[in-house]
Amino acid sequence: LFDGTSFTYTYLLADTKTKEAVLIDPVLEQVDRDVKLVEELGLNLIYAANTHVHADHITGTGRIKQKIPGCKSVIAKASEAKADVHLEQGEKLKFGEYELEARSTPGHTNGCLTYVCHNQKMAFTGDALLIRGCGRTDFQQGNSERLYDSVHTHILSLPEDYLLYPAHDYKGQTSSSVWEEKMFNPRLTKTKAEFVEIMKNLNLAYPKMIDKALPANMVCGLHDITDQQKSA
Amino acid sequence: LFDGTSFTYTYLLADTKTKEAVLIDPVLEQVDRDVKLVEELGLNLIYAANTHVHADHITGTGRIKQKIPGCKSVIAKASEAKADVHLEQGEKLKFGEYELEARSTPGHTNGCLTYVCHNQKMAFTGDALLIRGCGRTDFQQGNSERLYDSVHTHILSLPEDYLLYPAHDYKGQTSSSVWEEKMFNPRLTKTKAEFVEIMKNLNLAYPKMIDKALPANMVCGLHDITDQQKSA
Repeated sequence: LFDGTSFTYTYLLADTKTKEAVLIDPVLEQVDRDVKLVEELGLNLIYAANTHVHADHITGTGRIKQKIPGCKSVIAKASEAKADVHLEQGEKLKFGEYELEARSTPGHTNGCLTYVCHNQKMAFTGDALLIRGCGRTDFQQGNSERLYDSVHTHILSLPEDYLLYPAHDYKGQTSSSVWEEKMFNPRLTKTKAEFVEIMKNLNLAYPKMIDKALPANMVCGLHDITDQQKSA
Repeated sequence: LFDGTSFTYTYLLADTKTKEAVLIDPVLEQVDRDVKLVEELGLNLIYAANTHVHADHITGTGRIKQKIPGCKSVIAKASEAKADVHLEQGEKLKFGEYELEARSTPGHTNGCLTYVCHNQKMAFTGDALLIRGCGRTDFQQGNSERLYDSVHTHILSLPEDYLLYPAHDYKGQTSSSVWEEKMFNPRLTKTKAEFVEIMKNLNLAYPKMIDKALPANMVCGLHDITDQQKSA
């Protein structure tokens, strides 16, 4: 699922037999769409998980918890954000017969996780690795050396046929693979020193939403929900 | 692949063994992105196929043919548009070990095709069937009765687990299934008479791009390519 304002991908994963499901990186403004889909498909949404504390949009997890009682919010322990479940490197999130392995991939933020679904050969990389790109490292706890090590140690070390699903894409691309990014990522195929230099010279604009999004996302989005939205 | 201006989905399908590939509904402005991806993946693009003569964007097929010699443009014979390959009901488009069956699904336009890939349980529905919606029937050769019959006869008659991929989505939804649309499509779950009434009362705005797109797409997009674009 895509949010055209923040260019965010939200992923709904489900075991179609047991109906247990997980939503990765929901966006506040799209919660009604997402909850409607969950209901239509007859799914039991047990987790609403974030890959990290987003700076460009407010997470939908808080609002989803209000609309789907029993659903738990999930984020990395290292993010220091409020949530029902805090994950550390190697911990698993189970839904039906499937599981997501949390891999710690800091560098864009301290608490970035990549969720790997081994039996489907898929990884949800958040902002650590984007298609032919990567998340910026110039705010929050950004650190280019750390991001380079994270991506090489925990994402590009996966088998080459694993498909990669990022948290964003700005060019209309929807998925990549470990092989593709090892071959064609213009930043991460470089040496670490070259990568750090590239990241230092991006000269990106200050994120429009950051001052609103960060405080809200540190408490899983509940912070910013008005009474009017709550009653919607 | 997604074009955020016209909200068009472009699909790149490939046999990863033989490398033969098909691109469905490419958009002119995204041709450089698409050709780059084809080249990176080492694919042999043999067909650039349209589901119909689009009114909201100029097709990329003409430009792709210039950039990838040997690639053939494909469209329905009933569209009366220029192309290398004209398909009729039931004809097949083969790429490697796979094939797309062309199903004639008129009603949005006379020449609308749905491409069905049976061994992957996928169908590419163009504008005949959108996720929880359908293409409009108030211009070109639009005919609501005809669209209703097309969708029920040739799309919703497929097995319920077939996944459906439309030419557009305006809410960030990326795919559906025959079962979902039979259950939840707010228009096509109605009777034919109710459907015709719904379509009659949509009161949609005149499409912005139509006067530019139609003449170009009748000749597969070559029409509108300037010398400057040709040399790009």
